[in-house]
Amino acid sequence: MTTNNNKISIEQGSGGAASADLISQLRKTYQLDSNWTNTEDDGAVFDLGNEKLVFTTDAFIVDPVFFAGGDIGKIAMCGTINDLAVMGAKPIGLSVSIIIEEGFPKEDLLKIAKSINKISQQTNIPVVTGDTKVTDKGKIDKIEITTAGVGLTKTVINNSGAKIGDDIITSGSLGDHAAVILAHRFDYKTTLESDCQPLNQEIQSVLNMLTSCKDPTRGGLAANLNEIAYKSKVKMILEEDQLPYKKQTVAICDLLGLSIFDLASEGRFVATVNPKNTKAVLTKLKNAQVIGKVIEGNGIYLKTNLETLRKIENSSGKLIPRIC
Amino acid sequence: MTTNNNKISIEQGSGGAASADLISQLRKTYQLDSNWTNTEDDGAVFDLGNEKLVFTTDAFIVDPVFFAGGDIGKIAMCGTINDLAVMGAKPIGLSVSIIIEEGFPKEDLLKIAKSINKISQQTNIPVVTGDTKVTDKGKIDKIEITTAGVGLTKTVINNSGAKIGDDIITSGSLGDHAAVILAHRFDYKTTLESDCQPLNQEIQSVLNMLTSCKDPTRGGLAANLNEIAYKSKVKMILEEDQLPYKKQTVAICDLLGLSIFDLASEGRFVATVNPKNTKAVLTKLKNAQVIGKVIEGNGIYLKTNLETLRKIENSSGKLIPRIC
Repeated sequence: MTTNNNKISIEQGSGGAASADLISQLRKTYQLDSNWTNTEDDGAVFDLGNEKLVFTTDAFIVDPVFFAGGDIGKIAMCGTINDLAVMGAKPIGLSVSIIIEEGFPKEDLLKIAKSINKISQQTNIPVVTGDTKVTDKGKIDKIEITTAGVGLTKTVINNSGAKIGDDIITSGSLGDHAAVILAHRFDYKTTLESDCQPLNQEIQSVLNMLTSCKDPTRGGLAANLNEIAYKSKVKMILEEDQLPYKKQTVAICDLLGLSIFDLASEGRFVATVNPKNTKAVLTKLKNAQVIGKVIEGNGIYLKTNLETLRKIENSSGKLIPRIC
Repeated sequence: MTTNNNKISIEQGSGGAASADLISQLRKTYQLDSNWTNTEDDGAVFDLGNEKLVFTTDAFIVDPVFFAGGDIGKIAMCGTINDLAVMGAKPIGLSVSIIIEEGFPKEDLLKIAKSINKISQQTNIPVVTGDTKVTDKGKIDKIEITTAGVGLTKTVINNSGAKIGDDIITSGSLGDHAAVILAHRFDYKTTLESDCQPLNQEIQSVLNMLTSCKDPTRGGLAANLNEIAYKSKVKMILEEDQLPYKKQTVAICDLLGLSIFDLASEGRFVATVNPKNTKAVLTKLKNAQVIGKVIEGNGIYLKTNLETLRKIENSSGKLIPRIC
């Protein structure tokens, strides 16, 4: 891939290796403070004494703004709720900051606001503060939403908590969201719906049984598991016949020559669980399944049906499409 | 002014009356929760028991990205720090979410990151979490930054706290920021610099002596004072010969036919103070001055040098330029 090192490239926003590199360059120039921990996780943690405050943010430009199973408002709410949830926090409040392009249909804006409210009511997490700005035409493509959120918890789930012997689970099929957006962009017909949904209630129900937890948004399962494995200093083996992808999702990926492991979900989580708790977790979570095992070593590998091992790398380069 | 009611217009993002109307329409569709207070203020307040958590957010698209006295990174940091500060909170951590247009110069991005860090170090407020995304060309104009912040305080300053008899003060000259941006847009030569700066230390130093406090960003002094007067159910009289505007700022406004009362600052606050504390406040704050008085009634009026009274309305319509 040819890149001009003086200009920011799309792959630096993909959620893969180039993103991680850009973010680490930016972070170097930010000051961090010892009162906060987990600042390289989905959310940062501040110790309030008898409990911990978790704080996170997420920015969304979504094309299309409305898609099967959701819209930019729903995805912006779920993104931040889920980032708090995977840290083990109970979200207490969200901010919604909206930048709107002049001329954006008011009806669409109100539809998005209703969709924000629906998630707020469903989860009982209030939107408590915000910012609403309108820019000249061409300064932004339709609408951009950034959410931030605060949550409270006694115990934080760390990405470094996966243990050798743990089972790896997903809360449901992966990549549905990306597949829906891909299908829209390339004008494929599909009955798939985005998986976009809040995860806080599901995660809270099994919280004390998870040793690590992440939601595979940008960068997909590959980025999630590589991060957990790297931080936990373990290796992971996935079983091909337990891969959590729907047939339609795989078909869309095959058509476009993409790796399913890079596909984003917006309403699923991946976690590690001590095998003595696996049955209890699967009972609580209706659509969860075991997809692999944590072992000694490093890296993520797929054990194929032919018993070969294939390394699953952290995605790099431009993901088609930018989902969020 | 002709507007198409089906399309979002620039004046709905101006910080004036049309903005307030749009935001109230959007808010109607959001759920609010009784655990949070001050949700229509600069920040929302959550009661943690022995102290209060304040949470706020601000979105920035700035043109030009770099200006005399600052850049988009500095303004994004100061905007959120100041929103926490005017509520009386000590900011404990910020999030920085950046959306970058593909092809944006990397050198400029690192300059912005350094500027973010400089404010962080100067104020000792860490950036603890963030999001960095890159969009295709044309999806955003260069760069957009949304900051959110959390702060802690024992006592919240409310905008409804102004009392009859209070003095009205400003922490310094107003509108410098807007004047710099205006000068740039219209290619006027000026030696003015943006007032963009963090206010938390200044406000903390006089905190217990302020009865209300706001920073006059979008919508300027007119929007600030109208909000305080409305919420406090009081009238305010400003003295023309005490107006806190520099000559160059007034000249730029006159040339462009704008009202100085609508001009944004990004590093100033306006407050009301019991007259028994005014001297102490002015001693603590180097550049503060009294600009008027709170009396019984409603609305904001300018007492001119000819002893006439002129009503200062909340700005409406398109402010030139959109500053942030």
